[in-house]
Amino acid sequence: MPDVLPFDQRLDRLAELAVRFGLGLRKGDEIILGAPLEAVPLVRRMTEHAYKAGANLVTPLYTDSVDQLTRFRCAPDSSFDVAPKWLSDGMAAAYRSGKVLRLAIYGEDPTLLKGQDPGRVARLNRARSMAGREMLELLTKFTVNWCIVAYATPAWAKAVFPALPEDEAVARLWDAIFAASRVDGPDPVANWEAHNAALHARTEWLNRRRFHALHFRGPGTDLRVGLAEGHRWIGGASMPTADRPACNPNIPSEEVFTTPHKDRVDGTVVSTKPLSYQGTLIEDIEVRFAAGRAVEARARVGNEVLQKVLETDEGAARLGEVALVPHSSPISQSGLLFQSTLFDENAASHIAFGQAYSVALSNGDAMAPVELAARGANSSLIHIDWMIGSGEISVDGIAADGTTEAVMKQGEWVGVAG
Amino acid sequence: MPDVLPFDQRLDRLAELAVRFGLGLRKGDEIILGAPLEAVPLVRRMTEHAYKAGANLVTPLYTDSVDQLTRFRCAPDSSFDVAPKWLSDGMAAAYRSGKVLRLAIYGEDPTLLKGQDPGRVARLNRARSMAGREMLELLTKFTVNWCIVAYATPAWAKAVFPALPEDEAVARLWDAIFAASRVDGPDPVANWEAHNAALHARTEWLNRRRFHALHFRGPGTDLRVGLAEGHRWIGGASMPTADRPACNPNIPSEEVFTTPHKDRVDGTVVSTKPLSYQGTLIEDIEVRFAAGRAVEARARVGNEVLQKVLETDEGAARLGEVALVPHSSPISQSGLLFQSTLFDENAASHIAFGQAYSVALSNGDAMAPVELAARGANSSLIHIDWMIGSGEISVDGIAADGTTEAVMKQGEWVGVAG
Repeated sequence: MPDVLPFDQRLDRLAELAVRFGLGLRKGDEIILGAPLEAVPLVRRMTEHAYKAGANLVTPLYTDSVDQLTRFRCAPDSSFDVAPKWLSDGMAAAYRSGKVLRLAIYGEDPTLLKGQDPGRVARLNRARSMAGREMLELLTKFTVNWCIVAYATPAWAKAVFPALPEDEAVARLWDAIFAASRVDGPDPVANWEAHNAALHARTEWLNRRRFHALHFRGPGTDLRVGLAEGHRWIGGASMPTADRPACNPNIPSEEVFTTPHKDRVDGTVVSTKPLSYQGTLIEDIEVRFAAGRAVEARARVGNEVLQKVLETDEGAARLGEVALVPHSSPISQSGLLFQSTLFDENAASHIAFGQAYSVALSNGDAMAPVELAARGANSSLIHIDWMIGSGEISVDGIAADGTTEAVMKQGEWVGVAG
Repeated sequence: MPDVLPFDQRLDRLAELAVRFGLGLRKGDEIILGAPLEAVPLVRRMTEHAYKAGANLVTPLYTDSVDQLTRFRCAPDSSFDVAPKWLSDGMAAAYRSGKVLRLAIYGEDPTLLKGQDPGRVARLNRARSMAGREMLELLTKFTVNWCIVAYATPAWAKAVFPALPEDEAVARLWDAIFAASRVDGPDPVANWEAHNAALHARTEWLNRRRFHALHFRGPGTDLRVGLAEGHRWIGGASMPTADRPACNPNIPSEEVFTTPHKDRVDGTVVSTKPLSYQGTLIEDIEVRFAAGRAVEARARVGNEVLQKVLETDEGAARLGEVALVPHSSPISQSGLLFQSTLFDENAASHIAFGQAYSVALSNGDAMAPVELAARGANSSLIHIDWMIGSGEISVDGIAADGTTEAVMKQGEWVGVAG
């Protein structure tokens, strides 16, 4: 056997891993499969693995970046406040039924909307968020299992490897995707199970501590992030329920995350990696928080887009997630900037402006919005992760009585098996 | 200017004709665009023309024949009773809103399901028909405007021209599609308006006559088709309403059609062209009707599939449409068997097993199912057209008092301007 399998076999492994392990597919399930047009080869392999595993139906929904650019070039201005609510509502109905799982393939060109009017980009995102809110809530609550994996589209590969010819860039990005998705070893599922056990050990340790806050320190950063009352740390596989087995929603995944308190974030923080957002790289972000709110925020590059994002709604300038990722994570060690949250958020500890995940609160899924807010969970149409971790950042946990305990030193876990 | 425009220009004309003239698009409309994966180039051109004409949103929904075959090869047996009702219901909600139009691109491989279990094919069609019934009803009532055009996919082209290399077959099928869709002349819209005027003159003539029945005679055929009470002849553009301009649902279209009486069809009839149905060519159909029902039916080729179709439900063996097409129609004169109803039904007079269109009854759209049935309109999950016209078939109209009047002689119109 060669050290590296032929491309077709690696792609087939990714398809099978996503359907069986990622989704936790069971006989009789149906799947809605969202994908970019370029990903037809992976969609077809996933479809085959799904039917072989007993799926009753796979419904692919393709998106086309060419159509999206055509819209910005030709559509009337009123178009940018419109989203296909009939489709989001249909998907929400499907997920509510409990029979239909969500599989997604990521392959966006991070530079696609570069140069487009930031106001229109923001309006379109807002329209889509509003139309898809119920659907997204069902997914974040794991009403049904879901999974997202990546596909090396040419446009994405060229953004990650701008100096390489397209075919080399695509090959390099595939190598990085296959490695990060852990499909290269002799037994991908065993590899994932060991990885999930390590993530689980970290969430268990953090959940036993019940810290009142985390304190991030490093060059330019001195930030206290209060944690929501009854916050729960989550990482790797989803919790199985009586109705559904576990799923592994993000492939790859290196983070453990929980819900910060929307009113108890204070201090200053700087980004440690560029944030790729809707075709714009936002670089060197500096934010000062007071009582949970970003009261000062600027970016050296992409500042106009950052300001638009923070103006989306009341919750957009508050935090909805805090996540810990060691500097030694394989994605971090690859040294690549993927310009995709699916990857880059797994390369460094991060925080997210916007919506909190109710699943990251004990019994959060059963709580009404007013109760979630009372615990400190933020609410917004946006959820945008940005990286604040590095090999120079340390994190302490602060207990309710003010005592502190080291969580990470110089970007690596302490006090819990790495 | 060359006699024939370059391919890209002809494709662009087809896209523009479909969006502006076919759909009757207005500013602020949205579109659901169904298409086979192969038709990406036409989808992109339609999307551009739609946005330029003021559409707020175009949502393409692609289907993949490879996935369909994978399903037959790999899916569990339970799969063949399942359809994405969440998607049909979502589309129905969109059409009910009145804002969302339906555009479709036809490009099916007529041989795709050849050799698959006819029982499974029939079950899948039934499941899809049941899931899509409400959606289809909204379209056949013209609650919103819709339009279907064709795309010469390689598999379809090879079925039509089996002796030619693939690229030649595709080029020949495109020539036939562009010609039949009337995009080749100097002014496609003017061409269509003249054509619609001719179709309109025929429907006006037939509607003034209010025949009680039609009598088809020719080799092997002696069939009396009773017409429903208050039947209405329809052809070409849809009727504009206070809410919507006219649309031209079928491109091409050569037929005028109306609603037969489900209990008053008697005699024998033979097919004059093969019927392409779900990957099977059904040839040399012979049917004897008594009191509306096909009491004897057989086909020399594809008889098993024909029998399955007629067993679908109570209405499957009764007629839901009767249509008149002159033997001189350009599609007939092309001499091609397109193995697609969109084309072949425009090459010969035809009848359809199954569901009637309420729009082909005066005030039919406002009638409850029980009232439609009382007028003689048939009800079924299927609607399958098959060709009974040729240059040897004559058609008489029979008035309520029993007097007759020639409608077609040897396949051509008489008594009304051709």
